[in-house]
Amino acid sequence: MLRIALAKGRLESESISYLEKCGYTFPEKSDRKLLIRDSENNIELLSVKPLDVPIYVYSGIADIGICGTDSIVESGLSLIQPMKLPFGICSMVVASFPDFKFNGRRTKIATKFPISTKKYLSSKSIDADIIKLNGSVELAPVVGLADAIVDIVQTGRTLKEHGLTIIDEVYKISAMVCVNNVSYRTKRMDLQFFFDKLWKLLDS
Amino acid sequence: MLRIALAKGRLESESISYLEKCGYTFPEKSDRKLLIRDSENNIELLSVKPLDVPIYVYSGIADIGICGTDSIVESGLSLIQPMKLPFGICSMVVASFPDFKFNGRRTKIATKFPISTKKYLSSKSIDADIIKLNGSVELAPVVGLADAIVDIVQTGRTLKEHGLTIIDEVYKISAMVCVNNVSYRTKRMDLQFFFDKLWKLLDS
Repeated sequence: MLRIALAKGRLESESISYLEKCGYTFPEKSDRKLLIRDSENNIELLSVKPLDVPIYVYSGIADIGICGTDSIVESGLSLIQPMKLPFGICSMVVASFPDFKFNGRRTKIATKFPISTKKYLSSKSIDADIIKLNGSVELAPVVGLADAIVDIVQTGRTLKEHGLTIIDEVYKISAMVCVNNVSYRTKRMDLQFFFDKLWKLLDS
Repeated sequence: MLRIALAKGRLESESISYLEKCGYTFPEKSDRKLLIRDSENNIELLSVKPLDVPIYVYSGIADIGICGTDSIVESGLSLIQPMKLPFGICSMVVASFPDFKFNGRRTKIATKFPISTKKYLSSKSIDADIIKLNGSVELAPVVGLADAIVDIVQTGRTLKEHGLTIIDEVYKISAMVCVNNVSYRTKRMDLQFFFDKLWKLLDS
């Protein structure tokens, strides 16, 4: 049995659709159960919060995880990432008002993604304060809590509604497959079979 | 003008109802706006994620915050807390399967509230690992990610559905009013007027 941790929310239905296209079937998928199974193919799906997927995989509770690049970066965990999937495409960006520039004084950046932000700032040798928020990050520059934000952008509509624009791209995001280190060695055959199905669809 | 940061979600409507009972009126409350005003009484409401309320108050973007005790504890920020409100009553608890006991080996505790958990463990001189999750914490003992959880319980129904029971209470929670340190000195008259209204209702 391979257990796959899926990121709840937007990526969840896209992940299940993708697995169905690969030949898996999940008859219980509408049952709001914690675990749903493809008993014939020995696959079990566990839906958890996006940022928790790497934790479930790292700890070995799940053999495989499917989540966005951002969840893996933010976990700070070292996970085997054998493949990128062709959905969940978006970007981690720095956004602010059109006239924003990083400058000498300490800039305040609000974000739900402090590790991504820290890596970006460090790679650009920028000195800035990170304010970790839990939601509505685009509100922070509007009310004066921060000068800029680092957030995920898909269509850019939310930014526009708040008068914000993209200043720089931090990294591109897509759905990623990650694998537990121990499972990678002990469940080699099962994993090979699973990845062959995914690669076949990816190549088609 | 006094700006009040409210915790989005369950507490938000209870907070607005409470302020209305105190005599404030918010004609825009159904407009899904970021800021809603009682212009006559110079009060402005800003709805943010519960855990972000203390950050908005600490930074001075809001003068006052209304959020649960848990949000204040988790922020780790030192805020003036002049009053407790009679709603949002629940508990932060340790929960696990009925036969759970903290024992010599390192126990794993999953939680969305690492600071509350750390304080509890330290006060009881218990050695345990904290696994910070972002949601569905009650799933962790069921799938074997953790031995116990620290989470907010209101009715206990979610715990029961997962076969879990309350092992110990960490602290009681209710809606709390917190105040920015600078506003507390510079907006003394406005705050006095506001608190008089709240106290009057509390005493009635």
